[in-house]
Amino acid sequence: MFKDATPEEINRAVQLSEEAFWEYRKLSLQDRKRLMYAIAAKLENSGMDIIHCAMEETNLPENRLIGERARTILQLRQYADACVAGDWLDVRIHKAKPDTGAPDIRKTKVPLGPVVVFGSSNFPFAYSTAGGDTATALAAGCTVIVKGHPAHAKTSQMVADLISEAVREEGMPENVFQHLHGISFEVGKQLVMHPGVKAVAFTGSLAGGKQLFDWGNQRKVPIPVFSEMGSTNPVFLLPGKLKSDAASIAKQYAASITQGVGQFCTNPGLILGIASEGLNEFKEMLKHEIRNAAPQKMLHAGIAKAYDTHKETALQQEGVSVLANSDVESHIKEGVPLVATVSGAEFIKNPLLKQEVFGPFSLVIECKDKAELAEAAKYMDGQLTSTIMGTENDIHEFKDVVSVAENFCGRLILNGVPTGVTVCRAMHHGGPFPATTDSRFTSVGGDAILRFVRPVAYQNWPDSLLPDELKDANPLGIERIVE
Amino acid sequence: MFKDATPEEINRAVQLSEEAFWEYRKLSLQDRKRLMYAIAAKLENSGMDIIHCAMEETNLPENRLIGERARTILQLRQYADACVAGDWLDVRIHKAKPDTGAPDIRKTKVPLGPVVVFGSSNFPFAYSTAGGDTATALAAGCTVIVKGHPAHAKTSQMVADLISEAVREEGMPENVFQHLHGISFEVGKQLVMHPGVKAVAFTGSLAGGKQLFDWGNQRKVPIPVFSEMGSTNPVFLLPGKLKSDAASIAKQYAASITQGVGQFCTNPGLILGIASEGLNEFKEMLKHEIRNAAPQKMLHAGIAKAYDTHKETALQQEGVSVLANSDVESHIKEGVPLVATVSGAEFIKNPLLKQEVFGPFSLVIECKDKAELAEAAKYMDGQLTSTIMGTENDIHEFKDVVSVAENFCGRLILNGVPTGVTVCRAMHHGGPFPATTDSRFTSVGGDAILRFVRPVAYQNWPDSLLPDELKDANPLGIERIVE
Repeated sequence: MFKDATPEEINRAVQLSEEAFWEYRKLSLQDRKRLMYAIAAKLENSGMDIIHCAMEETNLPENRLIGERARTILQLRQYADACVAGDWLDVRIHKAKPDTGAPDIRKTKVPLGPVVVFGSSNFPFAYSTAGGDTATALAAGCTVIVKGHPAHAKTSQMVADLISEAVREEGMPENVFQHLHGISFEVGKQLVMHPGVKAVAFTGSLAGGKQLFDWGNQRKVPIPVFSEMGSTNPVFLLPGKLKSDAASIAKQYAASITQGVGQFCTNPGLILGIASEGLNEFKEMLKHEIRNAAPQKMLHAGIAKAYDTHKETALQQEGVSVLANSDVESHIKEGVPLVATVSGAEFIKNPLLKQEVFGPFSLVIECKDKAELAEAAKYMDGQLTSTIMGTENDIHEFKDVVSVAENFCGRLILNGVPTGVTVCRAMHHGGPFPATTDSRFTSVGGDAILRFVRPVAYQNWPDSLLPDELKDANPLGIERIVE
Repeated sequence: MFKDATPEEINRAVQLSEEAFWEYRKLSLQDRKRLMYAIAAKLENSGMDIIHCAMEETNLPENRLIGERARTILQLRQYADACVAGDWLDVRIHKAKPDTGAPDIRKTKVPLGPVVVFGSSNFPFAYSTAGGDTATALAAGCTVIVKGHPAHAKTSQMVADLISEAVREEGMPENVFQHLHGISFEVGKQLVMHPGVKAVAFTGSLAGGKQLFDWGNQRKVPIPVFSEMGSTNPVFLLPGKLKSDAASIAKQYAASITQGVGQFCTNPGLILGIASEGLNEFKEMLKHEIRNAAPQKMLHAGIAKAYDTHKETALQQEGVSVLANSDVESHIKEGVPLVATVSGAEFIKNPLLKQEVFGPFSLVIECKDKAELAEAAKYMDGQLTSTIMGTENDIHEFKDVVSVAENFCGRLILNGVPTGVTVCRAMHHGGPFPATTDSRFTSVGGDAILRFVRPVAYQNWPDSLLPDELKDANPLGIERIVE
């Protein structure tokens, strides 16, 4: 129903974004906050039509979508507050030392320029049009062009219209935010390759995110492309913990695996343990729970099909066997939960088993001993998260595994589940490739602003001509390091 | 005299670096500081042999090299102090909120892994073997493999031996630091492409730095490659300032252009002004000064030859004419200072004139009016620095030019020269491509550590198992944000 943006429309959008950038970058942190709060208010008052539209487009249930919209509002306000707190500017002031001839040097951060945001399929609100990437780019002082996700194009357009209303009502430069549609990959390619675009944010598949990253680097002037590309989120079930809590852990994990039809980048896709009575107990309870977990409609037909294909491929690998399949009777024939198992030895031999199966699937890896568990840990790719299920004693005994996990992931969880990403300043949602394209940045929390800014040092400028955050009197009242 | 490292030696070095990394990353910030101070002490006691060796290899004068060694020592100590200050860890603590079910989340930073450092040709001490890249990688908790610059391989080896002594005497993991030689680009390529290497730092030419960046991105697992690739450092001579100070500015700039035979990445290669009596006076005095500036030996024959070639190419462009050539009689036939001039209109038409001519060369761009100056400013590529020579009145009148300069550079200087990079926490030595491959990072100052670390969030870990910087009692006494 929406037409793909034409090459002319894309050129025009980037040009308008560049023009708006020169205005928007001059606005104060308070002005940016005002815009973000206004967008939050628009979303807060957006009623049920937008929720029903998203339900129809994504098959996600009403409660989840209402909750996700609330999260999006929270993000906008929290990142706006982080914006005006200003500590992300990392201001450092080095006053002139006339005796040594050392000049006055003061460092702050400036926005990169127009940012292109690719909405995700699995979070139509929180990681799409008005989601975390748009919010942090606006906080950074960048203008934004969103390419709406084609799987929820109507919802995306509705959110975009709300943002545009807020922009108008707050008297902001009109093109600080723009929204384009595109099913063809050519739309995305042209946006990323356009010389006027200065950064890209994406949440989605490895194939998609890596392609954008490659385009960004192949430009005459390369730009940062932050792609968050999902993860298998390995969970280590350590023996002491399993001994006491195997059944409850299994229940907790069955819920985590099937939550949201497994359509989370933090879904626990790999669960590792050492052959033992505890692990057997865990598997038995997990089987029981998964058999009783109902199939559910997935986000769209393409994702449902990909889930079945990847699941089948995993099951065809040497040594992999089904542990349990949902046996709930249902007219829904997609999103069927399944857990499988494989030995540690087979797992380590077959890189295909490390690939994410996006959906309600998990692979239980049974290692024969401590050494094999350690070997399997070392063999992992970069991850958004890793979880240790262990007693304090386990942690000491398996400190090498913990250390390896810390080294491959962005968030290390103790005795919990990886699903559920708290929106707070202390959150890190990122990790070594292939979890993201740059492990040094997060896409959740106020520090996600850092993706879209760069430092500038001012040398020997008089107080009156310095940006406010660098003036002697510190009129913004932000945290600074003064040497 | 040194043989290129063989493929086997490179594999072995990376493997040893990975092994050492698992030990070194566990050491405290204080331990890292101890190592860095020990290296500084070794350099401090390294005597004159190493200076004489560097003189022979680089043609740089004794005083400069003694000063550069002192700077290297200062850097090691300053970055070690920044390391233990710990604010670069950006610790954020979000305590559990049992009422909302929000978990305890605490974020700190961990090192990326083995880092490969490519020494520069023009700073045999400060941006080479024990230079800023090595120092900040060690501060980050990374192990380091330096590929010594072939133009000063002996000096590099001598410094490497000092570092290895310090490593041994401090009881550090032996391979926390390693040093390889390589004239062939294959050595660099194999190092950057090796799966065990996790980051790269380079200071040098655009061609070299861009090649390393491309290799880093073409890996199966891409890694960050921070290349600092030089700059033309545009200087804007605004009319009010020129009216009063044309002659003294010309003297100041003649010195900046010829300092160190122009072999600095901050050398002022482009000087822009509006046709006026003041600009004429500037040019007359610049001519006088450059005629009296003596030729000097350059770093090596390759650089001297490249200087002549690029200078000749610039002079052959439409509308470019020589303003002044050194006419000092000398037996030295290289590194001959030259300044040329071109109209704003011709400059804007010819991208070749934006290319860096590494050496004592500068191009004075005479714009016909304010609009043309603004157009020339908008036409600039990314830069390490830009300088505004202006009165307060000029700054207001040319605020668009100032804004554009702020947007293309990493350091904005008022009424000074770009040469001379103060080593302090507030310094930013970086800038948009092609100045560097990632404008979000600096290669000078304590914040250069940030290139080699990434955040990790700990979820629900008990105090006793957390890294020290995250413990409730803050035993390291570092700055933290607690929500």
